[in-house]
Amino acid sequence: MRIDFSTVKPRDIYHWMTSTIMPRPIAWVSTMSAEGKTNLAPFSFFQGVSSAPPILMFVPANNRDGGRKHTLLNIEQVPEFVVNLVPHSLAEKMNATAALLPYGESEFDAFGIAALPSESVRPPRVDGAPVAFECKLHSIVPMGEGPQAANVVFGSIQLMHIVDEAVVPGAYADAAKLDLIGRMGGELYVRTHDTFALKRPDR
Amino acid sequence: MRIDFSTVKPRDIYHWMTSTIMPRPIAWVSTMSAEGKTNLAPFSFFQGVSSAPPILMFVPANNRDGGRKHTLLNIEQVPEFVVNLVPHSLAEKMNATAALLPYGESEFDAFGIAALPSESVRPPRVDGAPVAFECKLHSIVPMGEGPQAANVVFGSIQLMHIVDEAVVPGAYADAAKLDLIGRMGGELYVRTHDTFALKRPDR
Repeated sequence: MRIDFSTVKPRDIYHWMTSTIMPRPIAWVSTMSAEGKTNLAPFSFFQGVSSAPPILMFVPANNRDGGRKHTLLNIEQVPEFVVNLVPHSLAEKMNATAALLPYGESEFDAFGIAALPSESVRPPRVDGAPVAFECKLHSIVPMGEGPQAANVVFGSIQLMHIVDEAVVPGAYADAAKLDLIGRMGGELYVRTHDTFALKRPDR
Repeated sequence: MRIDFSTVKPRDIYHWMTSTIMPRPIAWVSTMSAEGKTNLAPFSFFQGVSSAPPILMFVPANNRDGGRKHTLLNIEQVPEFVVNLVPHSLAEKMNATAALLPYGESEFDAFGIAALPSESVRPPRVDGAPVAFECKLHSIVPMGEGPQAANVVFGSIQLMHIVDEAVVPGAYADAAKLDLIGRMGGELYVRTHDTFALKRPDR
């Protein structure tokens, strides 16, 4: 089947993209408004970008009514954020924070999610997230126009927190112990235990 | 554990990022040089960006020796590419194409990967990939400096191919039938069958 995107509505394009570009990692992003109110919301258009300097990106697409996401409003006020990663044990809490609360009402408070102070940025991080990246805003690159317009947020990673038990001595993170979930299409998520290894070619 | 990225080498930062920002979707990108030589290579810093207009991104980080990836060289010559998605059945072939061949030598030929002509762009797509996005270059946004510098490649999706059997009548793609794999850290990949659903909050 062949789908010409010039003839398809944006909402359908969105669903074609999210039901095929997968599995997607999930950024559970904490931010803070100028008044110091915290926000926490999940995004799956999220990815690493560069290691020198350390940069990641995520896209807070606009709400269905065309309004800008509270996450973006906050980053424009306080250009700092924390990307918390989501283990299976926090899947329900993460999903709850996809709700649209009135601006200024904190998902940490509304859903009983414990916060820990960050070190290099003002927004707190999620207690229980096995990994958290403290980021300062690098740049916002606008994409598209109209109500569905998106803004690509690039963050400079200042420091990373990782739970001790998921650190492999002499190496990096242990995927099984992180127990992260990924995003698929529709209402589907995927677990990450069914792994296999492929040796990278030498030449 | 707390890792201050200002004190860590880029190579270690890369491994911390790739062993935690996961599962990552895989873009198996076909390109063409000005002389018409094809290239095919996998990238896991890959993500959807926007549906209006339809845009995706991937990052062809430089080679370990600081050289620009052939994929990027080709896109600078012929600003078009196809993002093929990778099912479990093509995992070995995809991994083989991570090899560094001499510039101009095609991975399609070297590894016996069948190509199909694209419609809207010059580079061919992979026969057997359940999904392929034909893209024209939208923009290249440079990130970082020095040998590890990265370039974020944004592509405008022209059209999408999807195998008929993975299309859900009246809806979008069937994850189980696509059987895509995702990228984890080190040499690990993940399968995508172990899914669960969470109803998105109403409010």
